[in-house]
Amino acid sequence: MNVAYEEMIRQFERVLVKYGITGQDASISAKLFADASRDGVHTHGLNRFPKFIASIKNGSVDVTKRAVPVESYGVLERWDGQRGPGNLNAYLAMNRAIELAGNQTVGIVALRNTNHWMRPGNYGLMAVEKDCIGIMWTNTVPNMPAWGGKDAKLGNNPLVLAIPHASSPILLDVAMSMFSYGKLEKYKREGIGCPVDGGFDSEGKLTRDPDAILSTHQVLPIGYWKGSGLSLALDLIAATISGGNTTRGVGQLPTETSLSQFFMAINLSSFPDREQLEREIANTLEDLKTSEARNGQTLHYPGEGMMKTREESLKNGVWVDEEIWKGVLEA
Amino acid sequence: MNVAYEEMIRQFERVLVKYGITGQDASISAKLFADASRDGVHTHGLNRFPKFIASIKNGSVDVTKRAVPVESYGVLERWDGQRGPGNLNAYLAMNRAIELAGNQTVGIVALRNTNHWMRPGNYGLMAVEKDCIGIMWTNTVPNMPAWGGKDAKLGNNPLVLAIPHASSPILLDVAMSMFSYGKLEKYKREGIGCPVDGGFDSEGKLTRDPDAILSTHQVLPIGYWKGSGLSLALDLIAATISGGNTTRGVGQLPTETSLSQFFMAINLSSFPDREQLEREIANTLEDLKTSEARNGQTLHYPGEGMMKTREESLKNGVWVDEEIWKGVLEA
Repeated sequence: MNVAYEEMIRQFERVLVKYGITGQDASISAKLFADASRDGVHTHGLNRFPKFIASIKNGSVDVTKRAVPVESYGVLERWDGQRGPGNLNAYLAMNRAIELAGNQTVGIVALRNTNHWMRPGNYGLMAVEKDCIGIMWTNTVPNMPAWGGKDAKLGNNPLVLAIPHASSPILLDVAMSMFSYGKLEKYKREGIGCPVDGGFDSEGKLTRDPDAILSTHQVLPIGYWKGSGLSLALDLIAATISGGNTTRGVGQLPTETSLSQFFMAINLSSFPDREQLEREIANTLEDLKTSEARNGQTLHYPGEGMMKTREESLKNGVWVDEEIWKGVLEA
Repeated sequence: MNVAYEEMIRQFERVLVKYGITGQDASISAKLFADASRDGVHTHGLNRFPKFIASIKNGSVDVTKRAVPVESYGVLERWDGQRGPGNLNAYLAMNRAIELAGNQTVGIVALRNTNHWMRPGNYGLMAVEKDCIGIMWTNTVPNMPAWGGKDAKLGNNPLVLAIPHASSPILLDVAMSMFSYGKLEKYKREGIGCPVDGGFDSEGKLTRDPDAILSTHQVLPIGYWKGSGLSLALDLIAATISGGNTTRGVGQLPTETSLSQFFMAINLSSFPDREQLEREIANTLEDLKTSEARNGQTLHYPGEGMMKTREESLKNGVWVDEEIWKGVLEA
C-alpha cells in the first residue's frame, strides 16, 4: 500500500516523541526516515524504523545526547556523537561541514562515538542542496572478511559521493561489500541467485547462492582485493581523523555503536566558472546515454532512478510494507 | 637483471636532461620513476619511461611548463598543469597540499590540464612521509564502459588512499577497472586467464579470458555497477573542483592529456592523540593477521608487500627488464 509522504513524517514524528526525541529533532529524524522511503531506499527508511526504536529501548541509542564539537582545526572539526541518535548526529555533522564550506569552500567534520546513520544518501543530498560536493563515509561493525581471510575483520563501510546537478543530482551510495546481508536474505526469500558473485561457499569458492553465503558469512568485497583495501583504508581514515573507534574497536562492543564517520563538503558556488562546471556535468551525463547498451540493459547514472521514484512517491504516496507500517501506527 | 637504485636514478636523470627537463626537476622526475620500479611497480617505473620520453618527443608533454596556482580558496587551491610533465605536476600539487595541511591541518590542490602522473602511489607516499593522510585521484581517457553499456565512456580513474603507519604505511592504489589493459596483455602473453572476471566477451557475457576482453575492449568496473558509479563520480569531482576536463572532454583530444586530478592531505600531527591513533592503526593491522586464511592464502594490508620489495631492491638492486633498460642506457 501507499501512504502520503506527509502522513509518514507525521507518524514517525509521533512515535519518536513518544520515545524521547522531541521538538525539531523529532521532525528532522522523521523526515530523514521518510525521505529514505520516499526515494525508494525502504531498507533504511520505514523498514529500519522499528529497529531504531528497539535500539532506543535497549539503550544503545541515547536519545538525550547529540553530537557536539570537541576540537577545531579551521575547516576541520572533530565532533563527539555521545552515542546519540545516528541520523541526527550525522545531520548535525553534515550541516556543520556544509556551513564551514559556505564560508571557506571546504568543510570537514569527523564524528566519533555515533550510531548507525540509517540511509547514507540523505547526507549527500544535504550537500547538493547547498551546491556542495559531498563526500562521506562511515565505518561499521566487522561484517566482511579481508581478502584472503575467512573471518569478518572489515566493515562494509558505506561511502557516499554526491555531486549537484540541476534538479537531479549524482548520488552514489555504495557499501564496500558486493551485497548487504539484507539483500542476501531478500534473494534467499525470493529463491533467486545473486546477479553476480556475492561471496564464498563452505569450500572457499565464489558463489551466487545467497544461502551458501549466509551460512559462511563470507561476503565479497567489491573488486575482490580492491574493495578489501578500500574498506580498511576508509575505516582507518574515519577513525583516525575523528579520534574514534576503528571497525576492530566497534567489534569489541556488545552491539554496533560508537562508530566513526567522515563528512566533507566542497562548495561549488565558490568557483567563478560555476555555470561552465554545470554544463560539463550535463554533457558527461548526456554522453553516457549515447553508449550502445549491452543486452538490452539501460544506462543510468547513480541517483537518476531515485528522482523518478521520488516523483512517484510524492504523487501517489510512498510505498510501504503493510505489516511494518501497521507496527508504526500501533507504536 | 638488477640495477642499483642510485644508478637507475642517474640514468633516468641523464636522459631527462637530454630531453629538456633539467636541474632539480630532472632529479625529482628521475627519482619518481626509480621509486616506482624500486617498490615493484614496474609498469609505472622503468617500463613507462620510454613512453614518457615519446610523449615529450611528440609534443603532448611540454617540458618547459609546470603546474602553477591559479585560484586560492584558503585550504583549497586550483592549479593549472599547463600540459607539463605529469609526474612533476603531481609532485608540485601534492607538495602544496601537504604544505597547506602543515599549516591548517587540511590541504587540497585540484589540478587541471595535466598529464599522466605515472605511479599514483608516489604521491600517497609523499603524504605519509609528512605524517599526512593522503587522498588523491586522477581522471583518464575514456577506457571503460559504464555499467550496462558497451562503449568506453568512463575512465579507470586510479584512486590512492594513504595512511601513515610506522615504517610501513597503508598504501592503497586502485584503478576503478578490475584489470588494466596492460595487465590483460600480460595475462594473454602468459597464456593464463584473469584470476576473476575481468570484462565482457563478444556475446556480452562476463569472462576471465584476457583475449576476449581485449577484443571487445569492455573491461569490468570493480564491483560492477558500483565501480561504474565510482568512476563517474571521481571524474566529475576532479573535473569540477579543478575546473578542468572531464573524462569525456579528455576523450575529445587527440591523445590522453589535459587531465584533472585531486590531491588532499590531512595532517595527523595536528591531533593531540596522535600516539593513540598510531596504536589503533597497529592494532587493526595486527587483528587482520589473526584471521583464518582461505585456502592457504595470505593476508596482507595494501602497501605491505611493497615495503618488502623495496628492501630487496635497495639490497640487491632494482629488477629491470633488460631490453627496456638497454634502451634507457642508449637513449
